Amino acid sequence: MHDDSEVAVLRLGHRPGRDERMTTHVGLTARALGADRVWVPDNAGQSRDTVADITDRFGGPFEVDLTDSPQGIIRNWEGRVVHLTMYGERVQDVEGDIRAAHREDDEPILIVVGAEKVPFDVYEEADWNVGVTNQPHSEVAGLAVFLDRLFEGRELEREWADADRTVVPMETGKRVEEVDEE
Amino acid sequence: MHDDSEVAVLRLGHRPGRDERMTTHVGLTARALGADRVWVPDNAGQSRDTVADITDRFGGPFEVDLTDSPQGIIRNWEGRVVHLTMYGERVQDVEGDIRAAHREDDEPILIVVGAEKVPFDVYEEADWNVGVTNQPHSEVAGLAVFLDRLFEGRELEREWADADRTVVPMETGKRVEEVDEE
Repeated sequence: MHDDSEVAVLRLGHRPGRDERMTTHVGLTARALGADRVWVPDNAGQSRDTVADITDRFGGPFEVDLTDSPQGIIRNWEGRVVHLTMYGERVQDVEGDIRAAHREDDEPILIVVGAEKVPFDVYEEADWNVGVTNQPHSEVAGLAVFLDRLFEGRELEREWADADRTVVPMETGKRVEEVDEE
Repeated sequence: MHDDSEVAVLRLGHRPGRDERMTTHVGLTARALGADRVWVPDNAGQSRDTVADITDRFGGPFEVDLTDSPQGIIRNWEGRVVHLTMYGERVQDVEGDIRAAHREDDEPILIVVGAEKVPFDVYEEADWNVGVTNQPHSEVAGLAVFLDRLFEGRELEREWADADRTVVPMETGKRVEEVDEE
């Protein structure tokens, strides 16, 4: 979140016509749950546009960008790299070390979220390969649980700047208010 | 989880040809993160089959079923109903009450996860309408964070019965072992 050192999400791999919604949900989850930015592959322009549109309407700051070199982003990242994979170490065993690196050592954190096959280089370049369970489920679910644990729930208290609208929590029903900023 | 009163997930709404992967990920996330069963709409047979196949290979117990009457399941549920929606009360404000109902009062919990438009009846029939943030993101992410908070991480320690294979957590690389049960 913006009071800490940066947390970025990198979506690795995207098959057009098949992954649009998953890649969009990765981006929206990164935004809603406290990351500062997301990169998506350069063939995922539709997902990029949707995330940018939500940020325009519901607020930021949050950056979404295309990249033609996801592995370049990993190699050049000045901080620590977490790769989420069902083959990795158990999140409950390593989350404390990752939080300490982020919060005590002010290390920026890059969270890599794969689609299907992830090149073996990524496993080697990551500082941590982390499994949110060692079961097959969803990269969106894994990212969500990881962010909630990294921030220990502080991301839920985040305030949003430059929003056109805001949702007011309700016991029953829906309330959306326009935000009238000076 | 199986040592507690039941936790079930109900996927509400499914547009064939568009929602297959989202509905599948809802089902797989329910399984991986400690729910006992999931219902998906009767036009989501492909998602049902995928979740059943993963359960056969990676273990259970976990039930996946089709339903032609999702709102009937809500009305007939003998326990408490949680509807996840970005318009609901903040998860951090209500999760304690929901956990107490589940763990202290042994109430079975039905978690309703919508696709696009959710009928207003569902908001009224739910005991809690809950927002995992009041931001638009992903029903899969919302379900994942909600389950992790409901179980307070105990779901990550779950053991699986009748698995053909198991993934061994690794710092780097992939290890899948065959399970040879007597």
